[in-house]
Amino acid sequence: MKNTFGESVAVTLFGESHGEAIGAVLDGIAPGIPVDEDAISAMLARRRPAGKIGTARRESDDFRIVSGVFAGKTTGAPLCVLIPNEDKKSSAYETWRGLARPGHADLTAFQKYHGFEDYRGGGHFSGRLTAPLVTLGAVALCALAEKGIALGTHIARLENVKDREWGDFSADFAALKTADFPMLDGGAANAAREAILAAAAEGDSVGGVLESAVLGMPAGVGEPFFDSVESRLSHALFSIPAVKGVEFGDGFALAAMRGSKANDPWRMENGVPVSKTNRNGGVNGGISNGMPITFRTAVKPTPSIFKEQETVDFLHGKDATLSLAGRHDPAIVHRAAVVVDAMTALTLLDLLSLRFGTDFFGGGK
Amino acid sequence: MKNTFGESVAVTLFGESHGEAIGAVLDGIAPGIPVDEDAISAMLARRRPAGKIGTARRESDDFRIVSGVFAGKTTGAPLCVLIPNEDKKSSAYETWRGLARPGHADLTAFQKYHGFEDYRGGGHFSGRLTAPLVTLGAVALCALAEKGIALGTHIARLENVKDREWGDFSADFAALKTADFPMLDGGAANAAREAILAAAAEGDSVGGVLESAVLGMPAGVGEPFFDSVESRLSHALFSIPAVKGVEFGDGFALAAMRGSKANDPWRMENGVPVSKTNRNGGVNGGISNGMPITFRTAVKPTPSIFKEQETVDFLHGKDATLSLAGRHDPAIVHRAAVVVDAMTALTLLDLLSLRFGTDFFGGGK
Amino acid sequence: MKNTFGESVAVTLFGESHGEAIGAVLDGIAPGIPVDEDAISAMLARRRPAGKIGTARRESDDFRIVSGVFAGKTTGAPLCVLIPNEDKKSSAYETWRGLARPGHADLTAFQKYHGFEDYRGGGHFSGRLTAPLVTLGAVALCALAEKGIALGTHIARLENVKDREWGDFSADFAALKTADFPMLDGGAANAAREAILAAAAEGDSVGGVLESAVLGMPAGVGEPFFDSVESRLSHALFSIPAVKGVEFGDGFALAAMRGSKANDPWRMENGVPVSKTNRNGGVNGGISNGMPITFRTAVKPTPSIFKEQETVDFLHGKDATLSLAGRHDPAIVHRAAVVVDAMTALTLLDLLSLRFGTDFFGGGK
Amino acid sequence: MKNTFGESVAVTLFGESHGEAIGAVLDGIAPGIPVDEDAISAMLARRRPAGKIGTARRESDDFRIVSGVFAGKTTGAPLCVLIPNEDKKSSAYETWRGLARPGHADLTAFQKYHGFEDYRGGGHFSGRLTAPLVTLGAVALCALAEKGIALGTHIARLENVKDREWGDFSADFAALKTADFPMLDGGAANAAREAILAAAAEGDSVGGVLESAVLGMPAGVGEPFFDSVESRLSHALFSIPAVKGVEFGDGFALAAMRGSKANDPWRMENGVPVSKTNRNGGVNGGISNGMPITFRTAVKPTPSIFKEQETVDFLHGKDATLSLAGRHDPAIVHRAAVVVDAMTALTLLDLLSLRFGTDFFGGGK
Repeated sequence: MKNTFGESVAVTLFGESHGEAIGAVLDGIAPGIPVDEDAISAMLARRRPAGKIGTARRESDDFRIVSGVFAGKTTGAPLCVLIPNEDKKSSAYETWRGLARPGHADLTAFQKYHGFEDYRGGGHFSGRLTAPLVTLGAVALCALAEKGIALGTHIARLENVKDREWGDFSADFAALKTADFPMLDGGAANAAREAILAAAAEGDSVGGVLESAVLGMPAGVGEPFFDSVESRLSHALFSIPAVKGVEFGDGFALAAMRGSKANDPWRMENGVPVSKTNRNGGVNGGISNGMPITFRTAVKPTPSIFKEQETVDFLHGKDATLSLAGRHDPAIVHRAAVVVDAMTALTLLDLLSLRFGTDFFGGGK
Repeated sequence: MKNTFGESVAVTLFGESHGEAIGAVLDGIAPGIPVDEDAISAMLARRRPAGKIGTARRESDDFRIVSGVFAGKTTGAPLCVLIPNEDKKSSAYETWRGLARPGHADLTAFQKYHGFEDYRGGGHFSGRLTAPLVTLGAVALCALAEKGIALGTHIARLENVKDREWGDFSADFAALKTADFPMLDGGAANAAREAILAAAAEGDSVGGVLESAVLGMPAGVGEPFFDSVESRLSHALFSIPAVKGVEFGDGFALAAMRGSKANDPWRMENGVPVSKTNRNGGVNGGISNGMPITFRTAVKPTPSIFKEQETVDFLHGKDATLSLAGRHDPAIVHRAAVVVDAMTALTLLDLLSLRFGTDFFGGGK
Repeated sequence: MKNTFGESVAVTLFGESHGEAIGAVLDGIAPGIPVDEDAISAMLARRRPAGKIGTARRESDDFRIVSGVFAGKTTGAPLCVLIPNEDKKSSAYETWRGLARPGHADLTAFQKYHGFEDYRGGGHFSGRLTAPLVTLGAVALCALAEKGIALGTHIARLENVKDREWGDFSADFAALKTADFPMLDGGAANAAREAILAAAAEGDSVGGVLESAVLGMPAGVGEPFFDSVESRLSHALFSIPAVKGVEFGDGFALAAMRGSKANDPWRMENGVPVSKTNRNGGVNGGISNGMPITFRTAVKPTPSIFKEQETVDFLHGKDATLSLAGRHDPAIVHRAAVVVDAMTALTLLDLLSLRFGTDFFGGGK
Repeated sequence: MKNTFGESVAVTLFGESHGEAIGAVLDGIAPGIPVDEDAISAMLARRRPAGKIGTARRESDDFRIVSGVFAGKTTGAPLCVLIPNEDKKSSAYETWRGLARPGHADLTAFQKYHGFEDYRGGGHFSGRLTAPLVTLGAVALCALAEKGIALGTHIARLENVKDREWGDFSADFAALKTADFPMLDGGAANAAREAILAAAAEGDSVGGVLESAVLGMPAGVGEPFFDSVESRLSHALFSIPAVKGVEFGDGFALAAMRGSKANDPWRMENGVPVSKTNRNGGVNGGISNGMPITFRTAVKPTPSIFKEQETVDFLHGKDATLSLAGRHDPAIVHRAAVVVDAMTALTLLDLLSLRFGTDFFGGGK
């Protein structure tokens, strides 16, 4: 399966940025999970460009759920969400046809699809395809919430601006759900927005590191080796456009530590083993241990910049230069936070369904 | 599938450290690939403890291929390799039964398997299980080599010791195949060994960052989104015990760059697009672009240390302390390098087989 | 994966009969395959009710391909087809809510989905869901045709009416493509229609046996054991509503033969092995041998009949009687023929892509 | 995955008839299931040749479970069973190298594996490979039994000899477990053995139809369309060598009935819906309905016969004749009964695990 992710609860993604519609199918979810379209819209809004730090393209993300929901709840049958593409300026892309925009997939799409690809607006590679993923992620989050599982993602670092660390997870998650900008500290959020505008003023772009946490995940979930929690989550996270690194717990920093520091000691607390530190990110041997699952995702700067770039015309096999115009985001990391939430929720929903059965969620007995 | 990885060419892993044997099945490989048992042994030797920096446990890795090879070549039918477990000191593990060795999977195995797990020597979670993976990886490397695809892994950093960067890939790969210690620079290798011994002298352990490169991968391989090269490789890499971070190209460093720096400009060279820099690690939009595929893997320090540690007795639900004895490696990062090679080779073999068909490799027409 | 079928080229199905739309996604197909909407419409027409032997429900099957096709050819990205549901008479189904229509999935849907299912018109179990499968099957047939692979299905037996046997496959396939009724012999077709009308006059229904053949399949495709040609095809065929039996070659009749009769002797013909008989249906040991692949599919009579039936009200746990009204087909076997073609084409497309690579089909090099 | 079957609980098969060993891995099973090696041996014995109606090849099926079992119970980690190959007379097969034994996979193996296959004794296609499947099936049956699920298979018809129909399922299942020959009626069993000997006396072979039933399967299991109970079971059954037809309930006979007869009416019995007839074999819309699941499997006559046969020498591309000698069974249908039980048990174990979670079985909470 190529554009499908998951085993018991799976997602299949389709659509090209300038085609008729994009969408995704969620297959295998339990029946009886409430589907709240307002909650979905709210989550999509966190993904959409807004204000001065976003593009001018209006993406209204008018989604329609065409199957799998009846009387406001999942039926248990496949749920398909469709998002029509609007406000397409396709003609602009004709100018660049055959040019490999650096950092984008134009050349690799050609190398894979031999010129038959729909190249307009990035085609099937467009970041727009994350909108249906967020829609389905919202449904997954609702299912997880009913089981006391919550999660959230903030920007730990944008270029050189650092956010504060997690405080009280629940309070931080709640704040992130309604924040204009996914940083925990207001001052850092302002500085980050400034950094984005500064880059934009130079026709450039910035990236950042997202930091996520999951609370309430039952212990004992995941598999040793190939379907470990880290394997499955990283598989999902690296499928998000522009992601170039993933680490769990203290991640790369663990590589410089001694074992005596990297190990998390255990103690009993109210009859449950709790670790004093959580450098391993809530996962041991690929299996969840009941502690918060923590990880970071590196998002590279948006490839579309307005400076002139050297490239090739791959249709004619010669060097060329490229100066983009049009509507491009100077940063996507703040938009990607909710996509990380969505992919995390979908992955955990699948792992939990495999472990505890389909009816662990939803309205069934 | 839980302990199976891959779609067209898949690996299924089995075995517990102190059971009768461990092994793995390689299913779906092309017929007619030469299977060189000496090459396999050489690769396994790079995984085995040796000298003062290793444990005292003698792992002879006497492997037997019990199916799938005939007249020295793969038959195309499933290939099973078995490695009997020897030199087991099981009684030692009885002392620690029920204690959660920090950083290990003792507790999570119990949380997942409810006490029915074979806990001796780490059971199914033991790093020993990487031996059959390396065996199959050797077969995969041979198949890739026939198509001009080569790869290698060195320790970029061990605790605070840094190796030099890649020079000429082919020469570096060749050196790594026969090196005692997987570092490119002799002085760095000595310093790294010293660091391992220093930690061992304190009853402690160290970790490191592995750096890998793949040459000769055809462009256009991989899928957008869910089965991207990064998703598939990270899935495989995070399944290796002790891995806690994976990044491609410049990885996390990209998050601090401007787009104008992070983007790789293109130019034509001998009729082929070549990028001037390779910060994206040879992958755009999840698809290989023909440039070397580069990535780093963070390996945490070996959890088994000789200092006293605080933990819990999870069978009795109370706090406890733990002082390990026996035979434990003060570092595993130097042994993990060849495991990274193996998992990379197996992943690429699968992606290429899906793309070009089973007979892209091997002796068939 | 639950509502997904296939590995390299996969189909994901969604939709409920009285929901907004039904559809399916074809994922993994090669780029550059011509998509002929007229050919698709023609194939859909063979599935739709027509004339006196069909229902009165007008299913216009206005399909829309919303992704995966650009400039008239597949892009290689996932192809989604949508078919809006029209002419729904939902209120009728309220009368029967909670009644288990014998032979249908009302009760089992409730047992599986705990009452959250969309029960109207059969919901996700409706035979209408075969329309998107036929649409994708048409695309698959086009791809297969470019490789010289053709197939066809006729009604071998409807109740007691028997069609003639295959004559010249190519001529028979061509005739079936445009026939009003999928039988090779005109007289048999008339008798079959009469049998359908006779049953309808009694408020009853009939079934039949479909017989299929595939020409031009390369030898050596399929896997021993679990992914044999028979395993994969039967898996696909039994997913068609109302199918209750599948046999290959002489099928169940082989069980009464001696081996000397059941075996197909071989001889060379123009440098290629050809079997003198084809009782094994073109498959040996699960692998295609180059001879036509032949099989039969048993389709039970349409469960919806107008006679009174004994049943239960499963919502209230008591006995009940049921007298259906409305629009129901007295037979579906003649409509199922093209669905068998579609599922066969999709299965073979997947097996061939796994074996020969994605670009075996389509416009790529 | 090619030689792997299942999703949550999967089986991977390996081995060639004259290689070092054959075996299989059961991956994903719950921990805490008792593994009774005597029960496994008893089930294997029903598969092995015995007495005058079997071959002279002694297959001792000395199996060894090398992983996944500890203290007599499954650990939850992958369970690998190995069966060494003994009593191999490989030299005999050299005589026939390159000859396509009619009804066997010699030619198709060559067409698939290009001559690299291990052809001796049928290689990876040998019926011997069903021994590890039966071993794992025994473990699955034990798990199912703890949940009150039982099943059995008898020969409904051997050539022209008919067995009686099912009486009391439980009593019949118990009798089949210990019977010398899998027929319910003693007289029929004798007649069947006579028929086998009569065929053997003529250097020929016979086939038969196996009939199976499953009791106690919970309702609501399976998926509509692609992973229906029928799709999954037929996929498993057709993977058994020599199987050429599968039908559920009244199967092909339904195709000649009217709907009023084919439909199963419902009534309440002790608060549970029960069908008055069971022509649909316990499955509606692909989902189990709580009634016994019934199906038949057609097994063709053993291809290896002693009469002279016309064939080709595919290595040299010319016609040839073949007269087999050696040790060949005149019938395998009586041996296949227990293989059908095994594959059925493994399939249901997977469907139930997907539906109710891994710990639905075994010793976990």
